[in-house]
Amino acid sequence: MRMVDLITKKRDGGKLSKEEVSFFVQGYTRGDIPDYQASAFLMTVYFNGMTEEETAWLTEEMANSGETFDLSSIAGKKVDKHSTGGVGDKITLITGPLVASIGIPVAKMSGRGLGHTGGTLDKLESFKGFSIDLSREQFMGLVNENKLAVAGQTGNLAPADKKLYALRDVTGTVNTIPLIASSIMSKKLASGAEAIVLDVKTGSGAFMKSLDESRQLAETMVKIGNNLGRQTVAVITDMNQPLGFEIGNSNEVKEAIQVLSGEKITDLREISVELATHMALLAGKFATYEEARAHLEACLDDGTALAAFRTFIGAQGGDTALVDNPELFPQADYHIEVKAPAAGFVHSIDAEGIGTAAMYLGAGRATKDDDIDHAVGITLMKKQGDAVQEGETIAVLHARDAEAADSRNKVLESYTINEEHIEKMTLIYDVIS
Amino acid sequence: MRMVDLITKKRDGGKLSKEEVSFFVQGYTRGDIPDYQASAFLMTVYFNGMTEEETAWLTEEMANSGETFDLSSIAGKKVDKHSTGGVGDKITLITGPLVASIGIPVAKMSGRGLGHTGGTLDKLESFKGFSIDLSREQFMGLVNENKLAVAGQTGNLAPADKKLYALRDVTGTVNTIPLIASSIMSKKLASGAEAIVLDVKTGSGAFMKSLDESRQLAETMVKIGNNLGRQTVAVITDMNQPLGFEIGNSNEVKEAIQVLSGEKITDLREISVELATHMALLAGKFATYEEARAHLEACLDDGTALAAFRTFIGAQGGDTALVDNPELFPQADYHIEVKAPAAGFVHSIDAEGIGTAAMYLGAGRATKDDDIDHAVGITLMKKQGDAVQEGETIAVLHARDAEAADSRNKVLESYTINEEHIEKMTLIYDVIS
Repeated sequence: MRMVDLITKKRDGGKLSKEEVSFFVQGYTRGDIPDYQASAFLMTVYFNGMTEEETAWLTEEMANSGETFDLSSIAGKKVDKHSTGGVGDKITLITGPLVASIGIPVAKMSGRGLGHTGGTLDKLESFKGFSIDLSREQFMGLVNENKLAVAGQTGNLAPADKKLYALRDVTGTVNTIPLIASSIMSKKLASGAEAIVLDVKTGSGAFMKSLDESRQLAETMVKIGNNLGRQTVAVITDMNQPLGFEIGNSNEVKEAIQVLSGEKITDLREISVELATHMALLAGKFATYEEARAHLEACLDDGTALAAFRTFIGAQGGDTALVDNPELFPQADYHIEVKAPAAGFVHSIDAEGIGTAAMYLGAGRATKDDDIDHAVGITLMKKQGDAVQEGETIAVLHARDAEAADSRNKVLESYTINEEHIEKMTLIYDVIS
Repeated sequence: MRMVDLITKKRDGGKLSKEEVSFFVQGYTRGDIPDYQASAFLMTVYFNGMTEEETAWLTEEMANSGETFDLSSIAGKKVDKHSTGGVGDKITLITGPLVASIGIPVAKMSGRGLGHTGGTLDKLESFKGFSIDLSREQFMGLVNENKLAVAGQTGNLAPADKKLYALRDVTGTVNTIPLIASSIMSKKLASGAEAIVLDVKTGSGAFMKSLDESRQLAETMVKIGNNLGRQTVAVITDMNQPLGFEIGNSNEVKEAIQVLSGEKITDLREISVELATHMALLAGKFATYEEARAHLEACLDDGTALAAFRTFIGAQGGDTALVDNPELFPQADYHIEVKAPAAGFVHSIDAEGIGTAAMYLGAGRATKDDDIDHAVGITLMKKQGDAVQEGETIAVLHARDAEAADSRNKVLESYTINEEHIEKMTLIYDVIS
């Protein structure tokens, strides 16, 4: 088999066999197939796509290219949740303890990566003492005991995906649905998930800006999961503005604790409960959607979910006093109010702009070696659809410097306020299974 | 400027600026732009093409990437002829001395390359003593003196094209017209041609199988030439069967000598005169096509062209006795007759098949280091449209071994003979300027 023949086959609209997909993934991972042939091939995929079968084979090969986790020593059906990423997304901090509190095991492996704010691991490290360095035995043990543990992702999870992603990043081949879908799903598979709930974000702050593209991505991932024997459900959720009111690290944790304590933070609670409901259904815990949902809502309202969170934090060495008294989290030095320049209604809040503003404050990581400041961040005081008066505070920056001019300007730029009344946006667009 | 941005621009159907094209060619030639970005870019060109301007800029940059020849010390307008390649193509051996004989300077730089038979250099080396290793001064001097010299191509002619071609060859990006056209034209430009006549072959034995594609290639090259200040004419000629009757090296030289001696070998003389006429017109020697053509035909018929050939061979050290007595060329050991398996008319002769049969005999080079056997080759006794009797000789193999079974089978396979009468094919399909 020659790689150049696979390139021309795909270039001319042909369909690769399972053996050909294996040849590519294995050969590229070993270094037998050079980068220049892989990138040419990826560009043919950009133009000609991949069939459902090709995409499943690609995912499977990438999942099997490195270490794979066997979670069978954990009792019960392991359901994973994955988000395609957005600003203010602290949903894992809510759904994890929420479904754990009803006995569904959540064995979460998470990466760090780069972004406007830290990832789930970084957010959890807002708790003094919290450790994500767990041996495989400790990790399994904690999940069996508490139904929830979060560990750092191993370096050798789906190395084929890692190598291909790095190549895609510099060759204009990131933005193509079969490659995005297989990249995400390969890591879920290697992590040992038996069933998967996908939170596919859509809108200006999401990787997929249009609902149509988001739906294609969701459908592709669901098909991959189903083709590879993992029940998969995708929920398409709004990312036309940041999720919830808090963007940062410890402040996102605080907001998650509020929802876990039963507070009705509309968008955040709604989407968290929706996703948790699908997780519970995939785990086979309930007969109907309504039953599952009612049960989960009750767990938020009666303290069960919060108790599971407290146990989880404590079990990984975190200071549980912070769960009960979130005001004890270290504070930033300055709290700078950003005022509305005119009266009207908030028409939109550019999520990427708010993310960038949080990054300017130090909440994120631009390169792998950057430190994250857990205390800085942004609190939105007004969201899309809200009425504002001229001079009213629309957002508060939690900053290390008294001015934070870059961040303030970026927040102002991100808000579009005008006179016409506007309806609140849809939160959940579709559920695909 | 970042290469990844150029890739995405072209991927999304954008048009590159002159600066961007320069950035790519120069950066890639220097090694600043890695192969994997270049190959991804080339694949976007495969899918999205290049504009007329982009193609001209690419050609110019590749031409200027290495050594360039200034032929201004040669008196008169330098007109080059280039063929896209076919089987039995000995036209340069005819047009060179033919136009030189009417005072048009032909400063021909030629490469060796791989193929079914040798290239022009190899064919000329059938003459004992003939040397293509000329200093630049010797080369210019010979052209000034005799109006014709042929030298080996320098190693550093259009190195960007050489590097890109090697990459295209292994990444499925050879077969795209702007890249083929710019590759050919960059070498013509670097060689110092002031005007160019292109012989674009079309048909089963040509790189471009369909007339439509051949026409696109011809048009693209003519536009490049005109955009870069070189008057360019393309003649689209037939390659649905080998050109002339001889395929090999010394036997092709012999056939060229026949045409230069006024013999009416239909297809070979017709196409040679057509191309020479356009060369003469571009050189400004004649007012009309008819006048040029009549003059050139006369030069073939009255020995003027043959005299120019004799002078040229002698000036580069070749044995001119062979020009006057071609039967003195070294002979192969065996002359094997291939007989028609049935009576009928020759419907087609697969040129590639005949080329391969010649290669089996040793007439060509599969790798750079192979030796060429100048004496072996094939003489076609019947061509397309000819009537044959069962058992009549359709071709003769000039071989080193008494059987040459592979070659004989390949020749038999290449002939399609059946009962219906068939018209002779068109020789010249179009002239594009």
